[in-house]
Amino acid sequence: MQTWRRTFVTSAPRLNASALSRCRPITRRCAQILEASKADGPCSLEDQEIKVNGFVRSVRKQKRFAFAEISDGSTIEPVQAILKPSQAAELSTGAAIEISGIWKACPPGKEQTHELQATEVNIVGNANPETYPIQKKYHSPDFLRQIPHLRIRTPFQSLLARFRSECLFQLGCVFHSRPEGPFTQVQPPIITSSDCEGAGETFTLLPRGGVTSSSGDAEHFFRTPKYLTVSSQLHLEAYAAELGNVWTLSPVFRAEKSDTPRHLSEFYMLEVEANFMNDIDTLTNLVEDLLRDLTRRLSTTSARWDRLMDGPRWHRLTYTRAIEMLQQAVAENGAVFEHSPTWEDGLQTEHEKYIVEVLHQGKPVFVTDYPTAIKPFYMAPSPCNNAESPGDTVACFDLLLPEVSEVAGGSLREHRLPNIIQKMREYGLIKRHVEGDSDMAARNEPRYPHLSPDEDLGHLEWYADLRRWGSAPHGGFGLGFDRFISYLSGVSSVRDVVAFPRYYGRADC
Amino acid sequence: MQTWRRTFVTSAPRLNASALSRCRPITRRCAQILEASKADGPCSLEDQEIKVNGFVRSVRKQKRFAFAEISDGSTIEPVQAILKPSQAAELSTGAAIEISGIWKACPPGKEQTHELQATEVNIVGNANPETYPIQKKYHSPDFLRQIPHLRIRTPFQSLLARFRSECLFQLGCVFHSRPEGPFTQVQPPIITSSDCEGAGETFTLLPRGGVTSSSGDAEHFFRTPKYLTVSSQLHLEAYAAELGNVWTLSPVFRAEKSDTPRHLSEFYMLEVEANFMNDIDTLTNLVEDLLRDLTRRLSTTSARWDRLMDGPRWHRLTYTRAIEMLQQAVAENGAVFEHSPTWEDGLQTEHEKYIVEVLHQGKPVFVTDYPTAIKPFYMAPSPCNNAESPGDTVACFDLLLPEVSEVAGGSLREHRLPNIIQKMREYGLIKRHVEGDSDMAARNEPRYPHLSPDEDLGHLEWYADLRRWGSAPHGGFGLGFDRFISYLSGVSSVRDVVAFPRYYGRADC
Repeated sequence: MQTWRRTFVTSAPRLNASALSRCRPITRRCAQILEASKADGPCSLEDQEIKVNGFVRSVRKQKRFAFAEISDGSTIEPVQAILKPSQAAELSTGAAIEISGIWKACPPGKEQTHELQATEVNIVGNANPETYPIQKKYHSPDFLRQIPHLRIRTPFQSLLARFRSECLFQLGCVFHSRPEGPFTQVQPPIITSSDCEGAGETFTLLPRGGVTSSSGDAEHFFRTPKYLTVSSQLHLEAYAAELGNVWTLSPVFRAEKSDTPRHLSEFYMLEVEANFMNDIDTLTNLVEDLLRDLTRRLSTTSARWDRLMDGPRWHRLTYTRAIEMLQQAVAENGAVFEHSPTWEDGLQTEHEKYIVEVLHQGKPVFVTDYPTAIKPFYMAPSPCNNAESPGDTVACFDLLLPEVSEVAGGSLREHRLPNIIQKMREYGLIKRHVEGDSDMAARNEPRYPHLSPDEDLGHLEWYADLRRWGSAPHGGFGLGFDRFISYLSGVSSVRDVVAFPRYYGRADC
Repeated sequence: MQTWRRTFVTSAPRLNASALSRCRPITRRCAQILEASKADGPCSLEDQEIKVNGFVRSVRKQKRFAFAEISDGSTIEPVQAILKPSQAAELSTGAAIEISGIWKACPPGKEQTHELQATEVNIVGNANPETYPIQKKYHSPDFLRQIPHLRIRTPFQSLLARFRSECLFQLGCVFHSRPEGPFTQVQPPIITSSDCEGAGETFTLLPRGGVTSSSGDAEHFFRTPKYLTVSSQLHLEAYAAELGNVWTLSPVFRAEKSDTPRHLSEFYMLEVEANFMNDIDTLTNLVEDLLRDLTRRLSTTSARWDRLMDGPRWHRLTYTRAIEMLQQAVAENGAVFEHSPTWEDGLQTEHEKYIVEVLHQGKPVFVTDYPTAIKPFYMAPSPCNNAESPGDTVACFDLLLPEVSEVAGGSLREHRLPNIIQKMREYGLIKRHVEGDSDMAARNEPRYPHLSPDEDLGHLEWYADLRRWGSAPHGGFGLGFDRFISYLSGVSSVRDVVAFPRYYGRADC
């Protein structure tokens, strides 16, 4: 079966220099070369002269031959090259080279099926092994995080970068081929006026020099203070009100000082918004559909993905039921938590982990209908605040996965104008003018429906406007894209999933 | 041929209420309905009951019937509905409705092939016509820019949003199916330390409250000052050094106060970087290839796109030649410019427009090899600074298109460590410590190759590092994505191409 591999070395066609110069070898990517060599049947490149532009991943010099692993970032597997000692004399790990040679089959028993018999080696950029930080040995994640610009040159980071790229491409395909018609991909603004989550953990924006302007006050390039977006949801609702189904993959920013392997100050969020959506089941079904489809398209056979792709519908349970189960676990099964689970306080990460890992055997779980008091103002009430819950709840969900816990969250949005205004009032988002305030001068009537004359919606008036004309029930969700990649790839810290991670105290390069 | 259209009204199947409740009509998107009705042969939906969730774009009430145009953002063409006057009584432009009915063929001569004979109309969200700003009439761009959250509901903005979405999807396909293997899509950081272009027009970042900290000094969340990226190029070079061919579509930010229809403070830039690239022709060929492929995939028959898709290879000319031609145009053809063209001062927009529109009959033009002095530090010298040029030039290009002028720019990068350091020195990017400076204490040797002991690369040391180990010739480019969409769609201001535009003095919503 593998006799085609036996034509080793001896049968190399003799190419003279002038023939070579007439037909310069075609430069090929390692991925193409190796794929062609793995296909059933004879390798189309066998005995041909090819050229690779890449890096020396390792070099082993022996008396009669030298062996080098060449990588060009197109695949994790290197191309093996066999060289004359003289050709390899100057080679060291990390050097950029152009190498031409004959692609020869190896005798059976060798790790690789083919190797490149070098005819010409050109060192384009040296790498001094005494100083080059990336060697072919174990480097700690912490060490590598300090040199993200070079960390990318490790095989694993290179693989992660290609994996992310494939995720991005397939994500586009998922939304483009939805059965109900394509979802529209939008690009909402990064610079915003509002802090959607109300957490106050935003970054403020100043034009350079603004801080040191003579008045000591910040000069406002955009007239009013602006922040980096913490979520595109509010803008997505504006798009969805026209386009129906929309999605975005946008960077979002949180000036959180939390120092955990699950948080970054800058990360990509996949956000989806759908108009004419009436119930939370439709929303969780959509999430499950999208993520199963994406995972299926990434077509790897990693067993860890089975929990996402295959098997029965993911679990759904209400928040109230989840709390009951956690309390029961404490009372009856001796579960120990740092924070004891109570209905009022929400779920801690330790609770989420217990729900997924212990109560649901490591399968994905949607927890729905959280208490109104611990969720943002824009969420719609659960359709029936039934006797089960000790207080008001909203029609929302968190999706919990093993290892990474919460990876997505979403809700139906309050779509009725009077109701959203009342919620904004309760959450302290409506500005109240006082007498003497210039904005109040001679105002007898409210300047907006459902407000009193001294009230002002400020920078959220446009958001209320979305409910003022032609508002329909709608909902959506956000998924921490980097965290999801961290789950899919089995990388425990999100700081190692992002090439140039930004977090409290750290933004190298 | 169109007899299948003749089965109008009379043949409507009688559906009783209980039958209806057993099989609720399937909700369909307008695009699907209209596409099915335009296909050759009988329409698969004809005489079926269907449901549309959408908005009233216009309504015309007559004595016996009412007619409404229903749109759901999936296509620019509305679905025509025919209603009883009682069903239409409350309808007004902008209202969100759920409408069910029978999809009936129209008699020949009507504008549309089919219309929806309404059986049930449910107003989900009213729109008061007295206050709703979007009516079925002409609104000036300036008026609409003040209400971007509602502007999206105009048919043209809705169409633009879908067009952008399709561009985004096809862009992914372009890079995924490159003949040399897929380009890796990367997500470089938005928060950076460096001002790549050296123009100083960056936005500075502060955690909220940082400005008002007691010391009066900004608290640095990331220890050192950070900015919003003005270009991802430097980071892309780090990726490309490992991955070979990379691309990104990332938001970039410029705190420019220029008030033109071609500039935004926040916009998306398509950036590409390729390792092992030796000459500017390879780069311009790549740009031309990518843009032709993208435009072809967008498969519209707009004549304006022919200049991109079809016809001979785009023009290339050197900057020096371009200046000569402009000067000749002034001397011999009476061309009049506000700024007279000189080799030292670069091209003004008026010059670029003349080069494209007059000198090249509105066809795309690459202008290459600009003077070194007017270009950033990282550009590599032109291979042969031949006698043609009065001074040093760099291996770079600008791509000029009709109407929008410069839409992309790129260069080969200086990839040799000593040379890039010398360039950084000349451009004042190297910090010089003075005696007594704590960083200088007891330093006798340079802390980096090719520096003197008092010099420091500061926040660009990582960028120099890319040349320190395994550096190969490479190059890349950036394309103003919004400006390119503005060209493709024929929209004269980029402020109308972006849903929520940000520019000096303006960042609504």
